[in-house]
Amino acid sequence: MEEKANGPKVEDNRRSVIAGPTNPMVTPLLTDQYQFTMAYAYWKAGKNNERAVFDLFFRKNPFGGEYTVFAGLEECIRFIANFKFTEEEIAFVRASLPNTCEDGFYDYLRGIDCSDVEVYAVSEGSVVFPKVPLMRVEGPIAVVQLLETPFVNLINYASLVATNAARHRFVAGKSKLLLEFGLRRAQGPDGGIGASKYCYIGGFDATSNVAAGRLFGIPLRGTHSHAFVSSFMSPDEIIDKSLQSCDSSSTCEDFVSLVQTWLSKIKWSHSLCGIFGETNQSELAAFTSYALAFPTNFLALVDTYDVMRSGIPNFCAVALALNDLGHKAVGIRLDSGDLAYLSSEARKFFCTIEKEFGVPGFGKMNITASNDLNEETLDALNKQGHEVDAFGIGTYLVTCYAQAALGCVFKLVEINNQPRIKLSEDVSKVSIPCKKRCYRLYGKEGYPLVDIMTGENEPPPKVAERILCRHPFNESKRAYVVPQRVEELLKCFWPASPDKAREELPPLKEIRDRCIKQLEQMRPDHMRRLNPTPYKVSVSAKLYDFIHFLWLNEAPVGELQ
Amino acid sequence: MEEKANGPKVEDNRRSVIAGPTNPMVTPLLTDQYQFTMAYAYWKAGKNNERAVFDLFFRKNPFGGEYTVFAGLEECIRFIANFKFTEEEIAFVRASLPNTCEDGFYDYLRGIDCSDVEVYAVSEGSVVFPKVPLMRVEGPIAVVQLLETPFVNLINYASLVATNAARHRFVAGKSKLLLEFGLRRAQGPDGGIGASKYCYIGGFDATSNVAAGRLFGIPLRGTHSHAFVSSFMSPDEIIDKSLQSCDSSSTCEDFVSLVQTWLSKIKWSHSLCGIFGETNQSELAAFTSYALAFPTNFLALVDTYDVMRSGIPNFCAVALALNDLGHKAVGIRLDSGDLAYLSSEARKFFCTIEKEFGVPGFGKMNITASNDLNEETLDALNKQGHEVDAFGIGTYLVTCYAQAALGCVFKLVEINNQPRIKLSEDVSKVSIPCKKRCYRLYGKEGYPLVDIMTGENEPPPKVAERILCRHPFNESKRAYVVPQRVEELLKCFWPASPDKAREELPPLKEIRDRCIKQLEQMRPDHMRRLNPTPYKVSVSAKLYDFIHFLWLNEAPVGELQ
Repeated sequence: MEEKANGPKVEDNRRSVIAGPTNPMVTPLLTDQYQFTMAYAYWKAGKNNERAVFDLFFRKNPFGGEYTVFAGLEECIRFIANFKFTEEEIAFVRASLPNTCEDGFYDYLRGIDCSDVEVYAVSEGSVVFPKVPLMRVEGPIAVVQLLETPFVNLINYASLVATNAARHRFVAGKSKLLLEFGLRRAQGPDGGIGASKYCYIGGFDATSNVAAGRLFGIPLRGTHSHAFVSSFMSPDEIIDKSLQSCDSSSTCEDFVSLVQTWLSKIKWSHSLCGIFGETNQSELAAFTSYALAFPTNFLALVDTYDVMRSGIPNFCAVALALNDLGHKAVGIRLDSGDLAYLSSEARKFFCTIEKEFGVPGFGKMNITASNDLNEETLDALNKQGHEVDAFGIGTYLVTCYAQAALGCVFKLVEINNQPRIKLSEDVSKVSIPCKKRCYRLYGKEGYPLVDIMTGENEPPPKVAERILCRHPFNESKRAYVVPQRVEELLKCFWPASPDKAREELPPLKEIRDRCIKQLEQMRPDHMRRLNPTPYKVSVSAKLYDFIHFLWLNEAPVGELQ
Repeated sequence: MEEKANGPKVEDNRRSVIAGPTNPMVTPLLTDQYQFTMAYAYWKAGKNNERAVFDLFFRKNPFGGEYTVFAGLEECIRFIANFKFTEEEIAFVRASLPNTCEDGFYDYLRGIDCSDVEVYAVSEGSVVFPKVPLMRVEGPIAVVQLLETPFVNLINYASLVATNAARHRFVAGKSKLLLEFGLRRAQGPDGGIGASKYCYIGGFDATSNVAAGRLFGIPLRGTHSHAFVSSFMSPDEIIDKSLQSCDSSSTCEDFVSLVQTWLSKIKWSHSLCGIFGETNQSELAAFTSYALAFPTNFLALVDTYDVMRSGIPNFCAVALALNDLGHKAVGIRLDSGDLAYLSSEARKFFCTIEKEFGVPGFGKMNITASNDLNEETLDALNKQGHEVDAFGIGTYLVTCYAQAALGCVFKLVEINNQPRIKLSEDVSKVSIPCKKRCYRLYGKEGYPLVDIMTGENEPPPKVAERILCRHPFNESKRAYVVPQRVEELLKCFWPASPDKAREELPPLKEIRDRCIKQLEQMRPDHMRRLNPTPYKVSVSAKLYDFIHFLWLNEAPVGELQ
């Protein structure tokens, strides 16, 4: 790793000091080789400083939905705030280009940073829609091209997984605890760290990923695995059996026996008699030992052998023994089987214990479920009815199994004040030219109605004024809107001039709050899982005319044959 | 980042010095919180040093296939070779655990490393199969548990994407050049870097990812994008028009005019007259400019406007002008449209040029294709017939879109010399107990016939001796095999004793060669895309009996109701 990786702060930057990217591997070399070949060609042609404007946007919402959560901006800003080639990086670029390339180019590379780049972006954590620029990046064309790949890399997965998290939250409902458990199945180490961060933004409550907890202050969760259970043979092997009461007033010298006594009481109790016979002794030993280690945080994984015939009775025996000493057990985790059925049976069991042994609150014991969950299984659980309080979600969440990529692109829309359009046989791939401003128009009920893009110098839409919103490519789709509120979407996060104000990078919690609030603000029909209504994205009448003028100008005139 | 991130080498390790993980974010905190709660519970129970054996394996081959490429081992070994908590990390763990946890635990954490851990593993780049341990990790249970999450994280995606690359290579065929272009769509920065490394192992030839090129020495590829083309207006803007001939003997003072002359010659030539009219002038300017920058490496993206009416004629004009100066153009890239049709038409055009203007080899111009390619589209292209020489593959390859996760697990199979089994209602999830040895038995034709697992102390299978191979869970599935060659699969990559030999970590190129060779060695019916024959994985008769003895012992006896 370069020096940069160690010193995440650039001291001599004329803006306020911004830390480097979370992952020290995010360096100016984290880009495609063609950005360097193009940089050389621009430099060779004397074009490298021509001022270009690029839009970063996506074309289609993921997961069959009609919304996307924008995330990854902070990492982009941290990247450009510290963008500078080391000598070793320049030597590598030189070695990778043909030896016909002139030396002056490497001097040029040596000198560049992002001080004359300007980034306007939607605030991180915002709900966003196709075609509207998430970021508008302006600057010397050769430099901005070098940023394309890292920016798209940093935004694509961040936004995809934040959106996935938001969708899981939507199905699970507000009251459930959502835990991200994906590190082991994530696509690489910082796939895991990124997943934890961006799932938190999208509405998750906690993660199992300790590194993410440390880097971002995300609450951590975790208890024990099946291996912990199978590592024990029987309660006989527990050596230190003593446990202090919660208020430290007394000590139970043989907690193991206390647990055994409770197990026997449950077994022969009036209401539970006959439900189970011999429970598994490894499991009982593991639970007892875990409770001795964490008397105030006892949460047990109950499905290593048999949930109802072993796990739940063993758990209850330990929980009741803890209760004798004033400790309140937290609950159980189910990691296999029919979660709807097992959680309901477990709940019944807990309620019976509460009643039979007069332990208030025992029936409300927390039930966490965590077996290959995704949007569909959460939805199915809701339909069946269940008693799960918290969901631990891994693989499907963090790898975005249902759709593993968001197709963010980075398109040139203007160079030297000349608007540029990228044509395509596929209309959905035609880019919207010009340096633009973007607004969200809100209706009477407080819902966003439509996003509208205008040319940079058009007057902004005004509250209570009638605005014509046109579909960018479909002549017949247009509507007048009278907004009750107008929000400008693109804000300056990285000014090209030191005098210009810069949006602060908000703390993670604030990004998360914005996301949750914006999702709640959406009209419900845009949010539903099946056949959601598309949110409208439009252009001003003036921009519409200009797009079509440019389109006709650029398109080759064919001959029908 | 900690000091560790900066100094990737541990100087005082008693083994030969092994560099730290490629990604400095891979620290002992890159694990699940429950590994720490368990470590504490083990420590509190005095069990933390009990010797445990865990197997890392997967249950099902990905992508509907019947083979998997094992990758990620080197990163695991680099991780454990440098495994040590910093004070700052210990402080974080302390803050994240309940304050009832005793101080002695943190002293314990401070002292641990992986010097008494032992890792046996299959060689990286090997073809592997479900249920057979890829890694067997033995050591003090609390330490080995801490390794679970990072190991699984480092192996899961690496093996998945290497397998995906191998599958793409299989469909594309040996003769095609395969380029990994996925960085921008990868799941995070080192998702991208990992993809480049492991796709190379799986049989790709090069990457666009400069950081991966630098870290791993993978060949780099890249030319220019659509934005480069649209950044030009017309050839008039080219200022420096001179170009030296290949042998430096002469200089063409107006290369732009030379290109224009050739364009006109092509347009009015006998065989091509009428095929195109006015080509796009931005594109012509961009190609000319790119050729001036890279006269020896001219490869142009020809689909910004219209491949056959603009891109190809413009390319040929520039290539023929280069040819006049003794420079040989490399070829074209197609990034949209019907690749089968366009590549064939482009080839015809090139051949016509070769013939019409007498330029030997022009017809063999390289054609690269790169539009949302995957196994299916490659297969479809093959069936239609095409003229593509090189494929640039991104999103579907690196995100493993077809199946975004491999389900590697890490299961306790023995503790204190006591074999352990993890039961499940689902037979496919029952783990195979015992510290095991694993062998691959080869038949007469040189194909691998079957993998067999035995208990650690069983005599190894011998060449030319009859061996009973049993399905681990299905009584009726068994077969005698007489191997012509026996290969022990698990080798010692990290010995618990300094006297013991350790397998060297081979260079990347060697891992890639192993992978390609092993894939070629497989019996073709295991490799086909549709309905491949499952490769057989078995246990010895002795291990079979023991599994079923243990199973009966552990399973609860129910009562039919």
